Amino acid sequence: MNEQAIGFFDSGVGGLTVVREVLRQLPNEKIVYIGDTARAPYGPRPSEQVEKFSWELTEFLLKKKVKMLVIACNTATAVALDEIKKKLDIPVVGVILPGSRAAIKASKANKIGVIGTVGTIRSASYERILREKSPKTEVYSLACPKFVPLVESNEFRSAIAKKVVAESLLPFKLQKPDALILGCTHYPLLRPIIQQAMGSEVALIDSGAETVSDVSMLLDYFNLSAKYRNEITHEFYTTGSARMFEEIADSWLGNISRTIEHVNLEEMKNATT
Amino acid sequence: MNEQAIGFFDSGVGGLTVVREVLRQLPNEKIVYIGDTARAPYGPRPSEQVEKFSWELTEFLLKKKVKMLVIACNTATAVALDEIKKKLDIPVVGVILPGSRAAIKASKANKIGVIGTVGTIRSASYERILREKSPKTEVYSLACPKFVPLVESNEFRSAIAKKVVAESLLPFKLQKPDALILGCTHYPLLRPIIQQAMGSEVALIDSGAETVSDVSMLLDYFNLSAKYRNEITHEFYTTGSARMFEEIADSWLGNISRTIEHVNLEEMKNATT
Repeated sequence: MNEQAIGFFDSGVGGLTVVREVLRQLPNEKIVYIGDTARAPYGPRPSEQVEKFSWELTEFLLKKKVKMLVIACNTATAVALDEIKKKLDIPVVGVILPGSRAAIKASKANKIGVIGTVGTIRSASYERILREKSPKTEVYSLACPKFVPLVESNEFRSAIAKKVVAESLLPFKLQKPDALILGCTHYPLLRPIIQQAMGSEVALIDSGAETVSDVSMLLDYFNLSAKYRNEITHEFYTTGSARMFEEIADSWLGNISRTIEHVNLEEMKNATT
Repeated sequence: MNEQAIGFFDSGVGGLTVVREVLRQLPNEKIVYIGDTARAPYGPRPSEQVEKFSWELTEFLLKKKVKMLVIACNTATAVALDEIKKKLDIPVVGVILPGSRAAIKASKANKIGVIGTVGTIRSASYERILREKSPKTEVYSLACPKFVPLVESNEFRSAIAKKVVAESLLPFKLQKPDALILGCTHYPLLRPIIQQAMGSEVALIDSGAETVSDVSMLLDYFNLSAKYRNEITHEFYTTGSARMFEEIADSWLGNISRTIEHVNLEEMKNATT
């Protein structure tokens, strides 16, 4: 039993799709979340930089005394999970393995599509894991660099979003995967239009939602689950505009007890050194 | 990556229902299994004795250099998991938490039934976990001491089995749970007649099958998954008759490459001391 919070970080608002599942499946757990909105998207950045940012966010969450760390960002998971997991003495969970496992389970034709940021696709993390776990599976990877900006600018329900998504996913018309990994935690916000573009028979795998099963399992395994409690106020932080973050958070997470604050990681760093 | 086997133990053949799921979901993994058939059932035994037997089986598997231990027996999980997990430096998984998690997910009416051996039900392990995780859930527990002997004697498809099962489950007619935890790894062999007795609308939760998700997750988490390999010969041991064990194993697991051997834990112990 452990009443401390679970820490989540993402390049921006994408990790909120993971948080929504945690609120549903693990109602006793308190959430501390930081989105690095000011520096999003991470996808096109060099991996050294994503690793550096990931450490800054990790240190921010460690100061909040989190009992477990969830890297709710595929790009950061691809680049920094192994290193962070090795160095921390709390459990650390990424979003790539859970999504891979779920896709193998869902694909009957052994043809799996993966969409993600340029950074995630370049890392080939999904491809490597899928091939290791299921050598007979064909994997089709596609970077979709236009998707994250659509979500971060709160335009993910617009006609433009619909057009961009349909055009970006055209290569799959030929390859015909029967399962598609949404390999970026921002993408579930585009889910309806991705499903429309892919066709209803394609199983969309939400890597973030799948991650919650791992979180739940590891809380049990390490005996870290929180007990039932009545009121939890979740804490959200963003390096960008609190107002913009709030709009997306409230429409996505609904009516929960929470605080949203802007933080400046650079200033915090200077203040402590 | 780790090519060592995963170790499983059970009071008898019940854990084979877990093994079947491992073969399906984790085809790269080698299995070493020991069933304590000579001393089954564990259900009616005092907990000190079940704990002692569990340690004997654990030591047998450790000598086989297993990389992970699965206690594929609810009675032993209830009594010995915490202690064994604390003392071993390989991951140790029981069957009670995974079954509980799956039942909470499956029950829409928040009414969960649990059937198990006298030992498992007396331990109240499922009740405690279900109430902790989901305080609003009503839990109905029922010991079914007649079920394991039906399975161990290979009579689980007989007319007698049908009658015994229907009579044993009568109390649920009034309580009407919409999810029923098969809280003993022997019970999935009785699944069709349990489903018939409960009605098709009740979700049967196979605690063993659910455990495989945990095994898979922990293999990933601790970086212990085996690589793809062509031929694996699984090893099965029983403290009882190899012939009887073979009959049930082959009908349940199908055509796999395996060895089945009788072992005498007492003799082995005397030989090494």
